[in-house]
Amino acid sequence: MKVHPECAQCLLKRIIYETRLGGADIEKQYVATEIALKALSERFSPHVCSAEIATDVHRVVYDLLGKDPYENAKKKSNEIALQLLPKARGMVELSENPFRTAVLCSIIGNVLDFGIRSDFENAEVLLEKFDSLCAEGLGYDDTEKIMELARNSRVAYLTDNCGEIAFDTLLIEQLKKLGASITLIVRGEPILTDATMEDVKELEMDKIVYKVTTTGRFAVGIPFWDMPEELERELESADLIIAKGMANYETLSEMDYRPVAYLLRTKCHPVASGMGLEKDINAAKLYK
Amino acid sequence: MKVHPECAQCLLKRIIYETRLGGADIEKQYVATEIALKALSERFSPHVCSAEIATDVHRVVYDLLGKDPYENAKKKSNEIALQLLPKARGMVELSENPFRTAVLCSIIGNVLDFGIRSDFENAEVLLEKFDSLCAEGLGYDDTEKIMELARNSRVAYLTDNCGEIAFDTLLIEQLKKLGASITLIVRGEPILTDATMEDVKELEMDKIVYKVTTTGRFAVGIPFWDMPEELERELESADLIIAKGMANYETLSEMDYRPVAYLLRTKCHPVASGMGLEKDINAAKLYK
Repeated sequence: MKVHPECAQCLLKRIIYETRLGGADIEKQYVATEIALKALSERFSPHVCSAEIATDVHRVVYDLLGKDPYENAKKKSNEIALQLLPKARGMVELSENPFRTAVLCSIIGNVLDFGIRSDFENAEVLLEKFDSLCAEGLGYDDTEKIMELARNSRVAYLTDNCGEIAFDTLLIEQLKKLGASITLIVRGEPILTDATMEDVKELEMDKIVYKVTTTGRFAVGIPFWDMPEELERELESADLIIAKGMANYETLSEMDYRPVAYLLRTKCHPVASGMGLEKDINAAKLYK
Repeated sequence: MKVHPECAQCLLKRIIYETRLGGADIEKQYVATEIALKALSERFSPHVCSAEIATDVHRVVYDLLGKDPYENAKKKSNEIALQLLPKARGMVELSENPFRTAVLCSIIGNVLDFGIRSDFENAEVLLEKFDSLCAEGLGYDDTEKIMELARNSRVAYLTDNCGEIAFDTLLIEQLKKLGASITLIVRGEPILTDATMEDVKELEMDKIVYKVTTTGRFAVGIPFWDMPEELERELESADLIIAKGMANYETLSEMDYRPVAYLLRTKCHPVASGMGLEKDINAAKLYK
């Protein structure tokens, strides 16, 4: 996906947020804004992928902060997601269509903010939000087709956030029941709230999949401009790619791999319209 | 007020909004974003006034659009405000403290979005919003002191938006009852939704004040970096300056004129904290 005019303000908002989360004082917040504006101004062009620009802008800010501002938030979000997981697992088990329910739960994992922002920290609020998202269901539903493609196949599963990744186990379990062999792909370095190998190990997810590999570097989504060979091989050889969240869409949509099933919440207008979907829906959309 | 890190994203959001309002196609929206980012990146510094940067950024975007994107919205907002004015006037007349109620109404005029955004276009929604803002009252209330200073004095009244300016007539009427002689100060050129001489004439407000003058140029707030002599004289000789809205605060706070009564809604964190106030309150605050 190419960057959209709306992306600039959104990216700057995120920069301020992460700068504060990283404990920067007001002087450092000014510097972060200045270097982010400079990087954004230099890189912004209708021909460049949104995630490529975002990667460059976050890079200069992380370098300024000298640390991963999301480190604590990530740990916390995994803990909170694990507390909610039994409820979600119960729903999948009781469902008439466990695969679809597992897809929905994994998308809800992409929406819930497990302790990153304060308003969802409260367990009660989180449960309410979970229930209301379940009630919404899938606004776009290709799960039947996705299920057929997954049967006895090689699946490359691109993860997104911490917290969310715990919910992905439910879908991984369903995929395995269909005889799928799963390669989990996480970020190569800590970036935003995205899951890395450390999270996979912490949640012991490496024990339930065939293989885990990474995107190899600091990048929002998949670094199509600098792909590790192994990642390239995995995506090429997969019978089905399952991609969670918007950043994976933003980057995978720049490449030709097929079939790809995007499981995400359409949180912004550029992604929603790029996918031909309404904004703010839970979507499971297959690109054959 | 110096620019705040949060201002960058807010300004960019406004730029995208006005570019679309001005009917720009997607290609022009990209160009607007690029030139706005460039201007913002060049100007952004903790030592520069927020409104000065905003002026420069809006300038390049207006030049690109080749027209005033808010032209229609401004006309419409005056019309809608006039429809609501009898209700507000009735409230002032029935009030135990007509001056305070007129101050509150003039601040509510600063909050209501008279047809600029679609969600307030509906007359019913607008009335509901008006009532709920009235019920909120003043979150910071220096009206007693302001009233005392206004008695038999020379008042320089700095206006803000179209629509809002119609509501200002209620406060002007109260000021005149106190024996004040009022010089109304509007923007020198169309910028954002701000009132200009054209609006004053259309609403026949020139007939109810002693004098009307302008800020002389295209500027967000008061162009303290390039002041017309007449404006300087008016502000120097005034016994009391009444300043409506945030942009007037952002610029007047860079100058030494006193006393100044700011009548505004604290719509953002930087202005609220700069004034030592809570965000999202109706405030009448006097600086002696």
